[in-house]
Amino acid sequence: MASSDTLAVVFAHIEANGSTFLDRLLAYLRHSSISAQNIGIAEVGALLVEILAKIGLETSLVPTDGHPMVVARWQKAPGKPTVLLYGHYDVQPPDPLDKWLSPPFEPTIRDGRIYARGVGDNKGQHFAQILAIESHLAVHGTLPCNVILLLEGEEEIGSPNIAGFVEANRAMLRADLAVTADGPRHASGAAAIKFGSRGVISFELRCRHAVRDVHSGNFGGVVPNPIWTLVHLLGTMKNAEGEITIPGLHDDIEAPTTEELAAIDALPLDIEAVKHSLGLTRLDAPADRPFYERLCFRPTLTINGFHGGYGGPGSKTVLPNEAMVKCDIRLVEAQDPEDILRKVAAHVTQHAPEVEFIAADAGMQPSKTPIASPFTAPLRRAFVAAQGVEPLLIPAGFGSLPGYVFTKILGIPAFVTPYANPDEANHAPNENLTLDCFYSGLRTGAALLYELGQLEAP
Amino acid sequence: MASSDTLAVVFAHIEANGSTFLDRLLAYLRHSSISAQNIGIAEVGALLVEILAKIGLETSLVPTDGHPMVVARWQKAPGKPTVLLYGHYDVQPPDPLDKWLSPPFEPTIRDGRIYARGVGDNKGQHFAQILAIESHLAVHGTLPCNVILLLEGEEEIGSPNIAGFVEANRAMLRADLAVTADGPRHASGAAAIKFGSRGVISFELRCRHAVRDVHSGNFGGVVPNPIWTLVHLLGTMKNAEGEITIPGLHDDIEAPTTEELAAIDALPLDIEAVKHSLGLTRLDAPADRPFYERLCFRPTLTINGFHGGYGGPGSKTVLPNEAMVKCDIRLVEAQDPEDILRKVAAHVTQHAPEVEFIAADAGMQPSKTPIASPFTAPLRRAFVAAQGVEPLLIPAGFGSLPGYVFTKILGIPAFVTPYANPDEANHAPNENLTLDCFYSGLRTGAALLYELGQLEAP
Repeated sequence: MASSDTLAVVFAHIEANGSTFLDRLLAYLRHSSISAQNIGIAEVGALLVEILAKIGLETSLVPTDGHPMVVARWQKAPGKPTVLLYGHYDVQPPDPLDKWLSPPFEPTIRDGRIYARGVGDNKGQHFAQILAIESHLAVHGTLPCNVILLLEGEEEIGSPNIAGFVEANRAMLRADLAVTADGPRHASGAAAIKFGSRGVISFELRCRHAVRDVHSGNFGGVVPNPIWTLVHLLGTMKNAEGEITIPGLHDDIEAPTTEELAAIDALPLDIEAVKHSLGLTRLDAPADRPFYERLCFRPTLTINGFHGGYGGPGSKTVLPNEAMVKCDIRLVEAQDPEDILRKVAAHVTQHAPEVEFIAADAGMQPSKTPIASPFTAPLRRAFVAAQGVEPLLIPAGFGSLPGYVFTKILGIPAFVTPYANPDEANHAPNENLTLDCFYSGLRTGAALLYELGQLEAP
Repeated sequence: MASSDTLAVVFAHIEANGSTFLDRLLAYLRHSSISAQNIGIAEVGALLVEILAKIGLETSLVPTDGHPMVVARWQKAPGKPTVLLYGHYDVQPPDPLDKWLSPPFEPTIRDGRIYARGVGDNKGQHFAQILAIESHLAVHGTLPCNVILLLEGEEEIGSPNIAGFVEANRAMLRADLAVTADGPRHASGAAAIKFGSRGVISFELRCRHAVRDVHSGNFGGVVPNPIWTLVHLLGTMKNAEGEITIPGLHDDIEAPTTEELAAIDALPLDIEAVKHSLGLTRLDAPADRPFYERLCFRPTLTINGFHGGYGGPGSKTVLPNEAMVKCDIRLVEAQDPEDILRKVAAHVTQHAPEVEFIAADAGMQPSKTPIASPFTAPLRRAFVAAQGVEPLLIPAGFGSLPGYVFTKILGIPAFVTPYANPDEANHAPNENLTLDCFYSGLRTGAALLYELGQLEAP
C-alpha cells in the first residue's frame, strides 16, 4: 500500500465510524472524574484500562501518592520513533451548576457542539488520540510508530506527583518526543503547535501589626497600617511602567531565538478585537512591548487578590490590623521556580521584614522545545494532512502545563497540539467542544502517528 | 453666702442625692435611642424635653431634616457669660449583642462601673451636666451663668444636620463659649481639657479594567490589573516614609503655637505601654516624629480597606477585573474638607484617570481653640475644685467631633471636657462608665457653671 493510502484508509475508517466514535465519547463524558473532590477518579482510571486493553495496548494503572497514572504502550515498530502521548482524565469541578444550560455530566449536542464538563479539557482530546490509535490498529493491525500513552489524574490540581512519577519511571517512559493534545487552538481559530509553556509560582504576603483593629482618629499616624505596608512593599516589586523590580528575577531568562521571534511575528493579531472582547481601553504597561512577546517570553507578576479592612457599604473610620495579598508569577525559560521563590522571599525580607511570605507550593517549571526540532516538520505535515492547513507555530503557551517533565526530566522535545475550539470554556460553565474540532483532532492524531512512522528512530 | 460656699452647698446636694441621681441615670439608659436604625429617637427626645422643662429650663424640640435637636435654655443671669453645653442623645447600635455580659439597655452595676449602651457616649456625660444644672437650681434657685443646652440626635451617624441647624439658628444659640462633655479622659486616666478636634473626610477609589476576571496565564502581562493600578496610585499618595505626597494637601496647615507644643510636651506618655497594649513592635513611620505631634497637628491618610480578587484558601491564578479601596484623611486646623477632597480627586485624575474617585460625604471640619482663651483658666479651676487635680491640656482631640460648628460658624471658643474613663468601650460591647467618673463629671459640671459665673460677660 502506498504511503498516502496508508493514512487515507485510516481517515476513511474514521469517517465511516464517526457516529459510533461520538457515541463512545459521550459515554466516556458521562463518568465524572473530579480530582479536587476525588469523585469518580478510581472508576474512570479502571474504565480507561479496560478501553485501552481492549484495543490492544499493554495497559497498567500505576499508583502514585495521589491519583493513579494510566500507562498504555504499543512498541512493536522497531526502528521507528516512540511518541509519548500525554493527557489527563481528571476534570475541573463543574460549579457553578446553575450556570450550565445542560447538566455537566449529561453530554448534550447543540448547534454542532458537545457540551459537557471535561469535553475539551481534556477527555475529548485524549479520547480522540485513543480513537486514532484504535483506527490505525483496526485498519492495518499495526501502528506506524511506537506509542506510550500517559494519562494523569491530577492535572487539574497542579500535577503534584507527575515529576516524581516521571523521575522514577524514566526507563518505562523512554521516548523520542512527547505530544500533548490539550487547550484551545489559537484565538483566531487557527490550528497551532505550541513548543512549550510558561511556568508558575504562587505565594501569599501576610501582614499583621496591632492585635486588633483600631480607630483611625485615635491611632491614625501612630499605629502602622498593614495595608500601607503591603502597598509599599508591592510598589518595590513591580513599577508603574510594568517592569518587575525584584533583584535577580530576570537573571536566567533566555532571549528568544531568531526563529521564535519570526514565529510570533507570523501570529495573527487583532489588538482592537482583544480589547473589544474584554472591554479594555488599553493593554497593560509597558505600552510598547509587542503583544506575543509579553505572553511567550516575559515573566509576569499578577496580584490575584488583595484583602484587608472594611469592604462593606458606606465608610468606616477603621485602621485595620491585618491584610493579605495573593500573587502568581508566570515564569519563562529558564527561570527556576525554587530560585524565583527564594529571590521573592529575600526581597520581601529586605523591604518588609514584618511581612510573612508563604509559598503556595513548589510551583511549575517552564518548558520550551526548539522550533528547529526534527519533529516539527512531521507534526506540521500531520496538520496539513488532517486539517488542510499549516499550523501556527507558538514558541510558548501562555498558561502552565507540566511539559517540563518531558523536556527537563526525560530530556526529549515536547509539543502541544491543541484540538479544542478557542471558546471551549474550559474551567467554566458550558464547557464545549465543536464536532469539527473533535473529528479534526481525531484525524490529526491519526496523521501524527503516520507522519512519525515515516521517520527512522533517532 | 461666700463664693466658695456657693459651690460647696451644690457639692453637698450632689453628695446627698447621689443614689437618686444614679437611679435616674439608670432609668434614662433603659431607653434605647439608636440613630442609625431610628429606634427610640422620638421617645428619648420627648423624655428629655419633659426632664429639662421640669427642672426649670425653657425647652424645645427643634425638627431638622433628620432627628430633632433638643434645645433648653436658662438666661436669667444678665452680665454673666452664656455657655453652650453640647451633647448627643443618640447611641451606637449595640451589636454584637452576644459579646455583652449584661443586656445593653438593662444598665447593670458591676465592680464600680455602670454597664449600658450610651452610658459613656454620651448619655452619662450630658445627664451629669443636666443634674449639675438641676443641683444649682435646687440649692440656689438660680444659676451662676447663662446656659444653652444643645442635645443632638445624630452624632453617631456623622452629625449631617448640625451645621445647617447652627447656621440657621445663630441668634438662638448666641453664646460666649461651647463646652462638650464627651469621650474619655486621657489614656493615662488623668483629667483633660481638649481644645479642638481633627476633621475627617472619607472616600473610595474604584478601578475596573476588563469586563470579567481572566486567566493570569492567558492574559497576564497583557490585560491591566486593577489591583496594581490602585497599588501604584496609592504609592503616589503617601510614601513609605509616612509622608502624604498629594500636592497641596499640607498648604493650609497651621503650625502649632509655642503654647500648644508646650502642652503636648507636658502630656504623660509611655510609648512602650502603648506598643504593649496593641502588640506592636514599632510605631508608624516616620519614626522620629513625636507621638502627640502626630495625633494633634498632622493629617493622616488611612486605608480603611482594600478588596479585590481572590481571597479564599489556597491559590487561584486569576487576574481580577475590579478592586476598591476605602480611605479616610484626618484633617488639622485649618484644612478644609472640600478643598482637600478636590485636591485628592485632582491627584487621582492626574495619576490614574481610570480610577473612580467617590467622596463618601462632605466630611467634617477640624476645629481648634487657642489654649490662651480667657475661658481656659475658669475651666481649669472647675477641674481643680471638682476633682482636686489640674487637667491636662490637649491642643486637639485625635478623633472628629462637630466642634467646628461652634468655632467656625458661631465663632466662639469650644472646649471638650471628657468625663468618661479611658476604657469606657464606646462603640463596643460592654460600654461602661465608672461611678467615680459619673460623680466627678457631675461635680465638674457644677463647678464649671460656678467658675463661669465668676466672670463678667465678654
